[in-house]
Amino acid sequence: MSAMQSFSIFSKAIANNRLSQYIIMKGTHFTVIAFTLLAFAYSLASAFDLSALQDFCVAIKDIKNGGLNKPGNTSNLVGSNVTTVNVDQIPGLNTLGISLARVDYAPYGLNPPHTHPRGTEILVVIKGTLYVGFVTSNPDNRLFTKILNPGDVFVFPIGLIHFQFNIGKTEAVAFAGLSSQNAGVITIANAVFGSNPPINPDVLTKAFQLDKNVVQYLQPRF
Amino acid sequence: MSAMQSFSIFSKAIANNRLSQYIIMKGTHFTVIAFTLLAFAYSLASAFDLSALQDFCVAIKDIKNGGLNKPGNTSNLVGSNVTTVNVDQIPGLNTLGISLARVDYAPYGLNPPHTHPRGTEILVVIKGTLYVGFVTSNPDNRLFTKILNPGDVFVFPIGLIHFQFNIGKTEAVAFAGLSSQNAGVITIANAVFGSNPPINPDVLTKAFQLDKNVVQYLQPRF
Amino acid sequence: MSAMQSFSIFSKAIANNRLSQYIIMKGTHFTVIAFTLLAFAYSLASAFDLSALQDFCVAIKDIKNGGLNKPGNTSNLVGSNVTTVNVDQIPGLNTLGISLARVDYAPYGLNPPHTHPRGTEILVVIKGTLYVGFVTSNPDNRLFTKILNPGDVFVFPIGLIHFQFNIGKTEAVAFAGLSSQNAGVITIANAVFGSNPPINPDVLTKAFQLDKNVVQYLQPRF
Amino acid sequence: MSAMQSFSIFSKAIANNRLSQYIIMKGTHFTVIAFTLLAFAYSLASAFDLSALQDFCVAIKDIKNGGLNKPGNTSNLVGSNVTTVNVDQIPGLNTLGISLARVDYAPYGLNPPHTHPRGTEILVVIKGTLYVGFVTSNPDNRLFTKILNPGDVFVFPIGLIHFQFNIGKTEAVAFAGLSSQNAGVITIANAVFGSNPPINPDVLTKAFQLDKNVVQYLQPRF
Amino acid sequence: MSAMQSFSIFSKAIANNRLSQYIIMKGTHFTVIAFTLLAFAYSLASAFDLSALQDFCVAIKDIKNGGLNKPGNTSNLVGSNVTTVNVDQIPGLNTLGISLARVDYAPYGLNPPHTHPRGTEILVVIKGTLYVGFVTSNPDNRLFTKILNPGDVFVFPIGLIHFQFNIGKTEAVAFAGLSSQNAGVITIANAVFGSNPPINPDVLTKAFQLDKNVVQYLQPRF
Amino acid sequence: MSAMQSFSIFSKAIANNRLSQYIIMKGTHFTVIAFTLLAFAYSLASAFDLSALQDFCVAIKDIKNGGLNKPGNTSNLVGSNVTTVNVDQIPGLNTLGISLARVDYAPYGLNPPHTHPRGTEILVVIKGTLYVGFVTSNPDNRLFTKILNPGDVFVFPIGLIHFQFNIGKTEAVAFAGLSSQNAGVITIANAVFGSNPPINPDVLTKAFQLDKNVVQYLQPRF
Repeated sequence: MSAMQSFSIFSKAIANNRLSQYIIMKGTHFTVIAFTLLAFAYSLASAFDLSALQDFCVAIKDIKNGGLNKPGNTSNLVGSNVTTVNVDQIPGLNTLGISLARVDYAPYGLNPPHTHPRGTEILVVIKGTLYVGFVTSNPDNRLFTKILNPGDVFVFPIGLIHFQFNIGKTEAVAFAGLSSQNAGVITIANAVFGSNPPINPDVLTKAFQLDKNVVQYLQPRF
Repeated sequence: MSAMQSFSIFSKAIANNRLSQYIIMKGTHFTVIAFTLLAFAYSLASAFDLSALQDFCVAIKDIKNGGLNKPGNTSNLVGSNVTTVNVDQIPGLNTLGISLARVDYAPYGLNPPHTHPRGTEILVVIKGTLYVGFVTSNPDNRLFTKILNPGDVFVFPIGLIHFQFNIGKTEAVAFAGLSSQNAGVITIANAVFGSNPPINPDVLTKAFQLDKNVVQYLQPRF
Repeated sequence: MSAMQSFSIFSKAIANNRLSQYIIMKGTHFTVIAFTLLAFAYSLASAFDLSALQDFCVAIKDIKNGGLNKPGNTSNLVGSNVTTVNVDQIPGLNTLGISLARVDYAPYGLNPPHTHPRGTEILVVIKGTLYVGFVTSNPDNRLFTKILNPGDVFVFPIGLIHFQFNIGKTEAVAFAGLSSQNAGVITIANAVFGSNPPINPDVLTKAFQLDKNVVQYLQPRF
Repeated sequence: MSAMQSFSIFSKAIANNRLSQYIIMKGTHFTVIAFTLLAFAYSLASAFDLSALQDFCVAIKDIKNGGLNKPGNTSNLVGSNVTTVNVDQIPGLNTLGISLARVDYAPYGLNPPHTHPRGTEILVVIKGTLYVGFVTSNPDNRLFTKILNPGDVFVFPIGLIHFQFNIGKTEAVAFAGLSSQNAGVITIANAVFGSNPPINPDVLTKAFQLDKNVVQYLQPRF
Repeated sequence: MSAMQSFSIFSKAIANNRLSQYIIMKGTHFTVIAFTLLAFAYSLASAFDLSALQDFCVAIKDIKNGGLNKPGNTSNLVGSNVTTVNVDQIPGLNTLGISLARVDYAPYGLNPPHTHPRGTEILVVIKGTLYVGFVTSNPDNRLFTKILNPGDVFVFPIGLIHFQFNIGKTEAVAFAGLSSQNAGVITIANAVFGSNPPINPDVLTKAFQLDKNVVQYLQPRF
Repeated sequence: MSAMQSFSIFSKAIANNRLSQYIIMKGTHFTVIAFTLLAFAYSLASAFDLSALQDFCVAIKDIKNGGLNKPGNTSNLVGSNVTTVNVDQIPGLNTLGISLARVDYAPYGLNPPHTHPRGTEILVVIKGTLYVGFVTSNPDNRLFTKILNPGDVFVFPIGLIHFQFNIGKTEAVAFAGLSSQNAGVITIANAVFGSNPPINPDVLTKAFQLDKNVVQYLQPRF
């Protein structure tokens, strides 16, 4: 089968949403081609044509059942837990630019300062009371904070450092929508003091104006 | 905080220094100019530079309090209610590409077939049991459905016709994230039979293969 | 050959537009890699770099000949026919964000209410007289209509329900440009009443306030 | 009226598509505000939220009547004429990413080598016979050509130099869709030899390896 | 002058790049409208039409002279200085998605850990020897480092925490291109410990596992 | 291994940045799949989710060493040389939308009129004196020029014809950032007179109003 033939077969398969069945019908090697052309099909959308090229890719039926009704395990140093439902759990989210998360907080639990390099977060509190905030970029480094009760909504703009702190005596629960199928998370303390391998302590000592011993004490802890 | 004050916070990130001086030179009714330049600033992001040009626009603190903890009023013909938190409620969502909604369903309540022309929806069930589905585009018009229980998550791809039906004897509640600050809603029955002014009945009779009397009976009802 | 080697070979092939020949030179298995890297190349454009990464992909020469000079067959229930020239007919359209269609209308023929989930349509009438319209989204569901004669141009915004109706005694012909290489079509009646499998009649009865018998009479007809 | 107040009023006006009436209701000065916030609304779409923020902007009804049924005047040096219907003729095209053109060719008329910096062109021949072509970028500068008859379709990828030449004894007519509401045109000869003020002849002499007299003879002619 | 009239006048002004002169020709009030419609024009590009709508906005001639040939002042705590040429210095960069920076480093000077929320950085060393690195997101927090000599090039992907450290006895100089007209800078230490107002010390103590006294000692220093 | 299995394995590999190692661990054939799914992953970003889906793709460490510290060879007809560092030299630039170039100019050397179909250029002069310019699109074809000395910065907007001419007695050097990982170059003289195969001389004679002998003399020279 020539390149053009295989392309046209698959482009049709893609065009009429029968690709996933097609994949199932064929063996591993064809799978490769199938994914290839799926990728091809999506990549077509990437340059000047920003709309998706089909209704969705891979089997949308393949969704997660349950998961977000159970509290996450918050018995850790910061006392919080994030359960994410993104494209890894729902391949059908591919190209659709959104994901969802449930955040659980132990009493006085903290979702520590972090950024989402690829998404804005909109959070709604279901239970408990949260002190939340984010910091703007240089030169202002302005801190915006608010205390949220059940039903309150807050927005954390893309790329900005933000946190949520449970200031109540009871567990807290929130749901968050993120404007990417895989928004990413950079926990500041872990990236700065817990990178693998560690950042040269001279860099951190100078940057954070910390005693070198403090830096060397912190690095193994993250 | 006055309009000028809140504006000047953002004018720092606006491209042209002379523009901001221009604002300072002028007085009160400068809201107009302020918005003009805010628009200018954002519009700069629109062509080849897709990243926002500042951390966010308009006062992000200005968020909605409460709202999503109270059930919406479902005493209507379809027995469902959608409470949306989008850019109209949170100006801070401007440019950030996400919004949130709470959907309440009376027993056997229906969120009728509709499309979001500007966003994909990811829905999580908090309470009750929903029969949900969406239909793919021509030529397949394939129907994908699922029964969702609390904690289940489902995705409705952008532009596709979809619905949620409460098949339980009790109220149901769901939260949904949408991949746009204003995803829009086109309720099929209302757009087709309830447009203002009405669509020529000959068009609907031919399109839906309905008796003209049925069309003329339906049109006043939407 | 290592991954890096195969990548660099193909990235060059891609970079200098010799990929299609390259594909032809190689057998099926290389085709796989070729498409893979082609997809890879395009996908590179997809994140922050929205410009295409090469002049075009696959053989642009491979265009459709003829087709749009012959009337389409309008002997069907609605009396219209759409002949599309999109990326399935012209692989060279890949990533270029545009396609073309010819629409033929029998006397009193209708292009029934539909949406293009991935494109705006600009239509020019070549022959005949068309009554055209579209409906805006909730809450207004405003209907905009116009009667078009040869040379008249009209725009149907992305995602909105629209139609064209030939109100003349003679055939009508129009050409349409669409702002996507594959804009998609959702014919409302077919998606709602003709989905496969059918939507639960209780949903449609409630949504369209139709007698259940009418729904059950309609469903087999689409 | 404070900034926030005026914003919310207009954001509602925008959100429910009543803005154009609003403009009509108000005088020039409010027009300013209206446009300001309209711009604001659109600019909101520009960063991370690429979907439009409403169904369309400005009065979509305000479309061009006629125009594309009349031949353009081809009595000029190259013997061709382009009649464009873009956002200048149809404000309703705003943000919708597409435009249309009619091209008329006298016998042996030429639409000379040019680029569209902001759009791909898809052309369909209605009448006559055209020799068309485009050239790829460095290092290949590959020329792709084809002879097109009525009903034939061809694609000119964004940014590439292309031309159409009427090789028949009769007038020719084509319609073209462009993937931008304002694709732009750079006619190579006019930009290089006819710029205002002229490019330093030493630059053109060296670049085109032409005798300086030839350059100085050409410059006044464009 | 009605809204439509003013729009068409200005859209022409915009379309043929005479807007800046036009603004100069007109008085204050027109300036308002001019900017309004400029914003309008750009905002048009923001939804589905991602190409710019004109060649550039505001006077492109208005560029910075000099600046990048003089060393920046590095006599500060970290011993480095960044001179940026972005849209604030060159309004002509508006919408064009790129900016430039010169970085000077004293001997052992550090450009401390920071992120660019809106751009990727490509850096070339002109003089001296730099130890550079960046850290990937959770869960790996992988550190990638390299020692760069004159002529070496390195890439810092958008949103990731990165730094450059002059490990030589002499000044170092680098130039950097950024993939945004205003990439933004979040210096981690300043955002976390130097925000205004300060973040609640309990949050930082828990997040960084620091003694509260250390946090309270650090906060006033940034 | 089924399609779904291979997908999930690789999507994880992609999600946690272990893909490059994965590639190294596996042989050529897996490489194919790896690239396939890498492409898949990126292509996912292409439709509605414009943020990258991971921190970067392929091994970012794999950067170019040196290169930009050595002058390029300017002994050619125009007396200039461009050394580009783009995605072909640094695979880690994939999807990141930026590249870098060094331009060397012999005394009176010319970087002849050209366009970058996929990027805006920001240029900084390191050494020498350059006369630079660009021409706007129809109908104005306005020429903007400036004489640049070391440290001066200039911008060439995407798609516009531009040039740099060394007007000094000594070599000149400049660095340029481009807003694409592969901006492309169309040298006007080479595309128009040097295409392969040549453009029909009748087209060029008519377009450039040149004597046919001049055209036929020029064509072999490019």
